[in-house]
Amino acid sequence: MEALEQRICQEGRILPGHIIKVDGFLNHQIDTQFLGELADEFAKLFDVSRVTKVLTAEASGIALAAICSFKWGIPMVFAKKAKSDNIEGGLYKSEVFSYTYKKSYTMICAKDWITANDKVLIVDDFMANGQAMRGLIDIVKESGAELVGIGCAIEKGFQDGGDGLRKDGYDLKSLAIIDEADENGFVFRKQ
Amino acid sequence: MEALEQRICQEGRILPGHIIKVDGFLNHQIDTQFLGELADEFAKLFDVSRVTKVLTAEASGIALAAICSFKWGIPMVFAKKAKSDNIEGGLYKSEVFSYTYKKSYTMICAKDWITANDKVLIVDDFMANGQAMRGLIDIVKESGAELVGIGCAIEKGFQDGGDGLRKDGYDLKSLAIIDEADENGFVFRKQ
Repeated sequence: MEALEQRICQEGRILPGHIIKVDGFLNHQIDTQFLGELADEFAKLFDVSRVTKVLTAEASGIALAAICSFKWGIPMVFAKKAKSDNIEGGLYKSEVFSYTYKKSYTMICAKDWITANDKVLIVDDFMANGQAMRGLIDIVKESGAELVGIGCAIEKGFQDGGDGLRKDGYDLKSLAIIDEADENGFVFRKQ
Repeated sequence: MEALEQRICQEGRILPGHIIKVDGFLNHQIDTQFLGELADEFAKLFDVSRVTKVLTAEASGIALAAICSFKWGIPMVFAKKAKSDNIEGGLYKSEVFSYTYKKSYTMICAKDWITANDKVLIVDDFMANGQAMRGLIDIVKESGAELVGIGCAIEKGFQDGGDGLRKDGYDLKSLAIIDEADENGFVFRKQ
């Protein structure tokens, strides 16, 4: 998606350790009008009329999923990082290793909100190693729901998360895939 | 707001320890169309045409803030719980004690995204003791921005967070204030 690639070039920053920061429009300050454009792009790539739930992960996926959900008229669910004493039994659970924080956490989702009757589109803002995405996929599998597809705004193509998911047969669509990010700037995969 | 009170009565559950769960429409599964109605109600209570940033806290406030931001055409910012190695210097910080998790955490926000020129409306989904809300207020004060007001969807009126903020002179508007929640159901404050 050209508008997203342009925005990454204009506002994205590259930090040591191949960390890409787009926190001026995507995941700290958020340009929700622009998220609306991303939602429209996902709606061209997936048959959202079949989708009954938009699923994302706490925390930075929530805004994008909320705008998709709002524009498409479909409820959203966000999987949580386990810690709350507000969540009782009846949970789907998946262990996720976070490379960012160098430790594992348990991703949880109440069974009430995704069932075998649902058709789920996973939406997330960012993917590197794909661990959080695989946690969300686990939750969909546990529920027995149909996984319609996986929409990601920005994929770090030089890490193996996205290509691993494609190899495993998942219908993953990323709106921008960054194949290189260094002092020379960003190189995007042609799609 | 009558529609919100009705929804709380229909779908809200009361757990031991005065925990109120509205996770079927507000903060786990989320009815974003309904959040759109909440956003419209906030727009009657505050002059959103003056607002330059919608500010909320990770994680459950993000969806509501995103819908407000989208409907009003104003960017949003969410304050994060400190932990990421993705966030370098230049931060506003506030220590927040969470009664839910019985420990303190540091709420952070990059200085880039709220400045002295901003006019900030704080929006959050839920308030009990008001600690997270005071963390957000601290961030606005640190930035030198103007605090236009504080919009909260559901306030637990039987805890002191909201009334404490009103006593301190803040323009806090809650769309539903629950004054009692027990085996007899919910009692809402007349506003």
